[in-house]
Order: sequence, then C-alpha cells, then structure tokens
Amino acid sequence: MIRVIKIGGAIVDDEAVLVSTLTALAPFAPFILIHGGGRVATDLARQLGIQQTMVNGRRVTDADTLKVVVQTYAGLINKTIVARLQALGVNTIGLTGADLDVVRAHRRAVGEVDYGFVGDVDDVRRDVLQQFLSKGQSIVLAPITHDGAGTLLNTNADTLASAVASALGKDAELVFLFEHAGVLRDVRDTTSTIPSLSRYQASRLIADGILTDGMLPKLEAAFAAAEAGVTQVRITRYDTPDAGTQILGEQTL
Amino acid sequence: MIRVIKIGGAIVDDEAVLVSTLTALAPFAPFILIHGGGRVATDLARQLGIQQTMVNGRRVTDADTLKVVVQTYAGLINKTIVARLQALGVNTIGLTGADLDVVRAHRRAVGEVDYGFVGDVDDVRRDVLQQFLSKGQSIVLAPITHDGAGTLLNTNADTLASAVASALGKDAELVFLFEHAGVLRDVRDTTSTIPSLSRYQASRLIADGILTDGMLPKLEAAFAAAEAGVTQVRITRYDTPDAGTQILGEQTL
Repeated sequence: MIRVIKIGGAIVDDEAVLVSTLTALAPFAPFILIHGGGRVATDLARQLGIQQTMVNGRRVTDADTLKVVVQTYAGLINKTIVARLQALGVNTIGLTGADLDVVRAHRRAVGEVDYGFVGDVDDVRRDVLQQFLSKGQSIVLAPITHDGAGTLLNTNADTLASAVASALGKDAELVFLFEHAGVLRDVRDTTSTIPSLSRYQASRLIADGILTDGMLPKLEAAFAAAEAGVTQVRITRYDTPDAGTQILGEQTL
Repeated sequence: MIRVIKIGGAIVDDEAVLVSTLTALAPFAPFILIHGGGRVATDLARQLGIQQTMVNGRRVTDADTLKVVVQTYAGLINKTIVARLQALGVNTIGLTGADLDVVRAHRRAVGEVDYGFVGDVDDVRRDVLQQFLSKGQSIVLAPITHDGAGTLLNTNADTLASAVASALGKDAELVFLFEHAGVLRDVRDTTSTIPSLSRYQASRLIADGILTDGMLPKLEAAFAAAEAGVTQVRITRYDTPDAGTQILGEQTL
C-alpha cells in the first residue's frame, strides 16, 4: 500500500510542525508527499509588489505570480523538505509535474474568471512514480505541473494529491494532513470531528451551511479520489494521521 | 559517452539563447546539464534588499541568500529548463544534490573568508545518475547540494560540473558553454582562442597576466576533470560546442 500524503500550508509554514510531521512519516517510507505553498509565496509576492488575487480560494496566477510560485513551491519548499527527509534517512526525490513528465496538465480555459497559468491535470504517469517507489525512494511533489509545450502551470495541491492517488487506485491510501482534527461540524469545536462522510452526507451538510468555505475544494478532491477507487481517504490533523474523517467513496456505501 | 554540459549565466539569462542552446543539445540526449544562476538570483536579492557580497567571484551565502539561490536555481531556472526540454521531446528530470542524495557536500570551513552556506563536494552518486541515463532520461542539475543533515548548500556550478564528470570518468565528456569562443589570449579579440591548454601552459599564461579573473575557477574545474580521467574537456561558446579550447589532462601530455 502506497501512502499519498498531502500536507497543507499551515504545516509548511511552521518549521517545528514540519519537522515533527516528517519525522512521524519517516517509518512509512517510501511514500508520496505532496505539499502546498503556505504563506511563503504570498509573502514573497508582497515583498516584490506583485498583486495577488484569490477567487474561490484559488490563486489567480499571472506571469509574475507563476515565477513566484515556481520559486517557492518547486525551489525553496520542495528542496527544504527533501533535505530534511534525507537527514531522517528517507531517500527522497523532489519533483514537479514537468520532471519526467510525471503530471501533464492544460491551462484552464478562461470562463467567468481567467485564472492565468493554472493547470488542470490531464495525466499522471504511474510508471514514473513506480520507478522510484519500487527502489524504496520516496517522492516529494510540488504543486507545479506543465503543459508539455514548455509552460509550467500552478495546480492546486489538494487536486494534485487526489489525481496522484487516483492514478494508483486501490494500491494507494490518501491522507490530507492539515491544522484541524478533521472535517468539523463546528470549526470552533475541535471535538466535533465527523468520523466518516459520504458525498450524500456532505451535500446535506453543505446545504445546511455546516460545511463551507475552504473545505469544499478539499472535500471535492477527497471524494474524487475515493470514487476513483483509492483504498482509504482521510482528512485529519498532522499529528493524528490515523484519526480524523474518513471519506467514503460510492463503492463503500 | 555521456555528455556533461555546464551552461553559464549568460545563457540562462537570455531566453532566446537558452532555447537555441537546448535545441542544439536535444539530439545528444540523454545528457547531464548543469546550470549556473545568472543574474536572476542577484536581481531577486536586490529586490528583496538582501546585500550580496562576492569574494574571488564566489557569492557569500548567508541564510537569506541561501533561500534566494535555492528559489532561483532549484526552482525557477531548473524547472524552466526541464519544461523547455520536455517540449523538445527530451525526457528530463531536474535535480539538486539533495534529491536521492546525488551530490553530498560539506559546508566550507571558515578561513580568511566565511562563505556561509557554501558547499564543497564530497561525493557524487554515479549509480543515481545512471538510474536515469540508462532509461534515456536526461538530468538537469542545479548548483545546490546538501550536507546530509538537513541543510542545503550553494555550490559553484563549474565545480559541480567538474565533480559530476569526474565521477563518470572516462565515460564522460565535459563541455563548459559560455559567452566567449573559448579561452582567449585577448578577451577583446574573439579570434584569439587558444585551441588546447595544459596545466603547465595555463600556469605560464597566468604568470604572464594573459589569463585572469573569472577564468581561473573555471580553468581549475576543467583541469580537475581532465586529470580525473574525463575523456574530453572543452570550454567553448554556446553555439559552437565542438570548437573552443580543449583542456588537456596530465595523461594526455
């Protein structure tokens, strides 16, 4: 079973949390770790005077912003994690989607919003992932993809994690690690974790206004993976990877 | 024969030159390409107000500068080249020394100068390079290494290219591509290329003040590779890879 682990921005932003999370993951190597960007890209853009626009929780990526996210996600964050894992004895390679063409995407069509250099995933090369995993080499994947025509693209890390786990199907477990205990009935009550959630249950909680905002894209990514046959999908806090909320695919109903 | 190609900052800085250089290299894949940083890191550091200090043509790398070079070398430049090569049909992986532990280094001891987070190479993993090359996968290596204890280090790209070629020995050719026609007797005369150069000849040209400045670290890197048994070592202009100056090792005297 291959663990595909998404770590969110709050983990990336806090060095102590990052190191303790990586230390806890080390015994499960080889794994695939997909990281978000955290505040690093936003901070760098602000320092450079590049205006940032968020729509529905997604970053509009103009040419200057693309440079910023490639620098921070594929450069600083990815390689910092790789070096930390090497120090923990986890032999690791850091990748973007462009490396060995592992994740091919296309630039999102302009609709009501022009997201700029944002990539929607077309294809994940399972054979390339296996090339490393079969040798015991772990993978750290930055949320940067490419279009095959020379252009790098910014892809949401939750979506990317879902696509990678889905490409591995029943051979994979997918865990989203973030700062909350799971999907909560009440974000102010850390004990209100929903133990398991089907798409039908989620749709009712959304209709009732209980699930809102930033959780919706993550939930969509989680359900997509569960419905693609990923063995187990879980959303949980970084220090309790086996607790949290289990996401049920249609086949588990 | 594996081509190890170092491309200098002037190539990285000019998108048209970069693309034409990569296009000319494509038929020789799989190869190992090692890139410098060009002005990108210096420009980013200036924009961020991080003071840059150069000593003997080497960048003093404090903690903030390390972040800048990791972002620009391992992030923006490395992944831009990878995506461009993919578009040319060259299946490529971008690496730093931390990835799969391919280049281990140690932080340079503080002598008259404290270079900060600058790494001197200890070990190049030939088996890791071969893992890719044997599958026809080219490698783009950023001049960032690690110490195995979690710290990334800034390593001179000429030195890194020399170390990588030396690890491959007689199976490798090493070409330094830059903006000049080769090692010149007179930097103002582009027709003054020295066709071949031994260490003894170079020492006389240095004593006579004919070879100076920025050429000396590159020459040292080139001689080290030639003396380590690399089959051919050449310093030449990016658009004439088979011309320029051939560097002679002791064994070719």
